[in-house]
Amino acid sequence: MEEDFRALEFVDGALRLIDQRKLPAELAYYTARTSSDTAFAIKDMIVRGAPAIGGAAAYGVYLALQESGDDRALFRRKCSLIRSSRPTAVNLMWAVDRMMAEAEACSYVPSRVLAEADAIVREDAAMNHALSRIGQAVIRQGDTILTHCNAGALATCGWGTALGIIKEAHFSGKGITVYADETRPRLQGARLTAWELMKAGIPSCLIPDSAAAVLMRDGRIDLVIVGADRIAANGDTANKLGTFMLSVIAREYGIPFYIAAPTSTIDPGTASGNDIPIEERDPDEVRRPGGMLMAPEGMKVFNPSFDVTPHQNITAIITERGIAYPPFDKAIGKLLNGGML
Amino acid sequence: MEEDFRALEFVDGALRLIDQRKLPAELAYYTARTSSDTAFAIKDMIVRGAPAIGGAAAYGVYLALQESGDDRALFRRKCSLIRSSRPTAVNLMWAVDRMMAEAEACSYVPSRVLAEADAIVREDAAMNHALSRIGQAVIRQGDTILTHCNAGALATCGWGTALGIIKEAHFSGKGITVYADETRPRLQGARLTAWELMKAGIPSCLIPDSAAAVLMRDGRIDLVIVGADRIAANGDTANKLGTFMLSVIAREYGIPFYIAAPTSTIDPGTASGNDIPIEERDPDEVRRPGGMLMAPEGMKVFNPSFDVTPHQNITAIITERGIAYPPFDKAIGKLLNGGML
Repeated sequence: MEEDFRALEFVDGALRLIDQRKLPAELAYYTARTSSDTAFAIKDMIVRGAPAIGGAAAYGVYLALQESGDDRALFRRKCSLIRSSRPTAVNLMWAVDRMMAEAEACSYVPSRVLAEADAIVREDAAMNHALSRIGQAVIRQGDTILTHCNAGALATCGWGTALGIIKEAHFSGKGITVYADETRPRLQGARLTAWELMKAGIPSCLIPDSAAAVLMRDGRIDLVIVGADRIAANGDTANKLGTFMLSVIAREYGIPFYIAAPTSTIDPGTASGNDIPIEERDPDEVRRPGGMLMAPEGMKVFNPSFDVTPHQNITAIITERGIAYPPFDKAIGKLLNGGML
Repeated sequence: MEEDFRALEFVDGALRLIDQRKLPAELAYYTARTSSDTAFAIKDMIVRGAPAIGGAAAYGVYLALQESGDDRALFRRKCSLIRSSRPTAVNLMWAVDRMMAEAEACSYVPSRVLAEADAIVREDAAMNHALSRIGQAVIRQGDTILTHCNAGALATCGWGTALGIIKEAHFSGKGITVYADETRPRLQGARLTAWELMKAGIPSCLIPDSAAAVLMRDGRIDLVIVGADRIAANGDTANKLGTFMLSVIAREYGIPFYIAAPTSTIDPGTASGNDIPIEERDPDEVRRPGGMLMAPEGMKVFNPSFDVTPHQNITAIITERGIAYPPFDKAIGKLLNGGML
C-alpha cells in the first residue's frame, strides 16, 4: 500500500515539495532549487513534520554541496543555515549531521552524497511501514482513535507514523474510526490529516482542539496516537502544541496514550524534556488565521509551536524496532544501542 | 466605571446590537426591528453571551407584543420562537418567561412590558458590578488570570462577569495580568475579549486554546475565571467548549477555578449537568474559519458550542449575592431562596 503523493521528491536536480501551506484548497508544489530555498521551505512550513523536514534537509545538504564547489567552509555555512531553520524537530539536525558525515567520508563525491539523501528518504518510509505494522499490537477491532496535528504521509518521507498506524489498521479491516483535532493555529489536523483521512476513506470526524476532552470523558475515545518532533533519552516527548494537554486528559480518564516515531526522532543528546528548545512562531499565526485579522492589532500573543509531554503521561512509544514501554530510559537506551524491543 | 459601548440598547423603538460577528475588524451595529430579527440575531450570534442574550430576548418579547396586537396566541408563538433560538444559555428562557409573566400580570400594557425589559437590562449590569466587587476576594495583588471565551461587557447587558471581576481588579490597582484563550471555533477570546482587554489597558496576552495547559503546568497562571451559560442545581456548569478541559488541567495543577455569573444563570429546573442541552453548531464554523476553506469539503465535524464542567472541578461560583463554595447544592439552594452567601 502506497500513497499517490509524496511530501518530497528529488526531481531533475531540485527538491519538489508539496506546498503544505495551500492544502486542502489546492495540491500545489514548491521547487527548492538551492539550499537556501530548502531552508526557507522548512522555516515557512511548506514542508513540515519532523521526518519530512529531515528528508528535505538531506537534499538541502546535497544542494549546498553543489553550490559550494570545493569551498568546504562555504558548504558548512550552508549546512548550518539548513540545520538552524527550525529548532525543535531533531530529525532536522540528525539528517544534516548524517549527510555532512557521509560527505566527509566519501570525500565530497556528489553522487555519493545524493545517494545518502535518497537512503534517508527510503529508510524513513520503510521505518514508517515497519512501525505501522508493529503498532497494530495496540489497536483492537472497532477502536476509536484520537490524533492531533498531522503525522501522516505529508509529515514524513512516506506513509506516516501515527497516521501510518491508523491507515494500516483501516486497510487491514479493523473497522476503526478516527477523531482528528484541528490543531490551531496552523490547522494541520483540519488541512492535512483530514485530507489524508478522506483520501484513505477512513471514517473520521474533525473537532476543535477543545472538544477532545469531552470525547475522552464520555468514553468515546479508546486510545490516542500522535507523532513526535523530538524524544528525550528519558522518554519525554516534544510534539505539536496541544499534545501535552491531551496527555493529561487521557491519563485522567485512563485512556492509553501512544507516541509513534522512527528512532531517528530520539535524541540521545537530550536528557529530558526540559532540554528541548521550543520554537515560538509569529504572533500573526494566531492573530490572522488564513490572513484575516481576528484579534485587535497589537495584541500580544504567546504562540509556542510545540509542547513537551512528560514520559509519565505516555503509555508507550511505537518505533520501527519495537514498542518501548516504561521505564523508557532503559528501553530507549536499548534502541540507541541498535537493539530491538 | 462604565464602558463606552453597549452590546445592546433599545433606541427609537428598535433593538440596537453591536454586531459581534464583525469585531474586532469593525464596530458595526445590527438593528432588530422585529421579534424575528431578534431571534435571528441570537441564533447567528450577532449578540452572544448568556446575560446579553437574556437582555436581547427581553426586548424581543416587547417587539413580539407590539407585532401581535390583541392576538395572545400569536404573541405566545413569537415568544416561543425567541425562546428556542438557542438551547443552552438559560438566561434566554429565564428572560422570556419573566417577560411573558409580566405581560400577563400587567394586562399586556406595552409601556409596562418595555419597562420590564429595561429592568432586566439594568439589573443585569448592576448584578455584574456587584459580583465584580465580591469577586475581588479571590484575586491577590499581581495575580495572573486565565480566562476563556468572552464574559465581558459584550457578553452581558453591561460591565461583564468573569471579565468584570478582572477589570475591577485592574482598575483597583491590583497589577494583574491576563491570558485569554482564543476560543475556537468562533474566536470570541481573540475577537472580543482581547478587544475589551486592550480597550481597558489591561496587560494581557492571547493564546491558542491548547497553550493553556502549558502555562498552567509551568506555574504561570494563579487562577482561572470564566463565565457560565447555565448552572445546574448541583453546581455543574455549562460554558463555552473548552471550559471543561481547562477545569481538568487546573485541578491537576492545583489552580483555583472560578465561575462568575449572576444568579439568573442558575437553573433550578436542571438537577445536574447531564440535563443541560448542548447546542451543536454548523460544521462550517470549524471547516471554514473566517469563510476560508480549511478542511476538505465534506469532512464530518463535531462542533458542540458548550461543554459541562462538573461541580467537583469548580473551586467557587461568584454571584452578585456572594460566593458559593462546595457543597454547591446547599449554597445554590440558599441563593435560589433569595438568600445571601
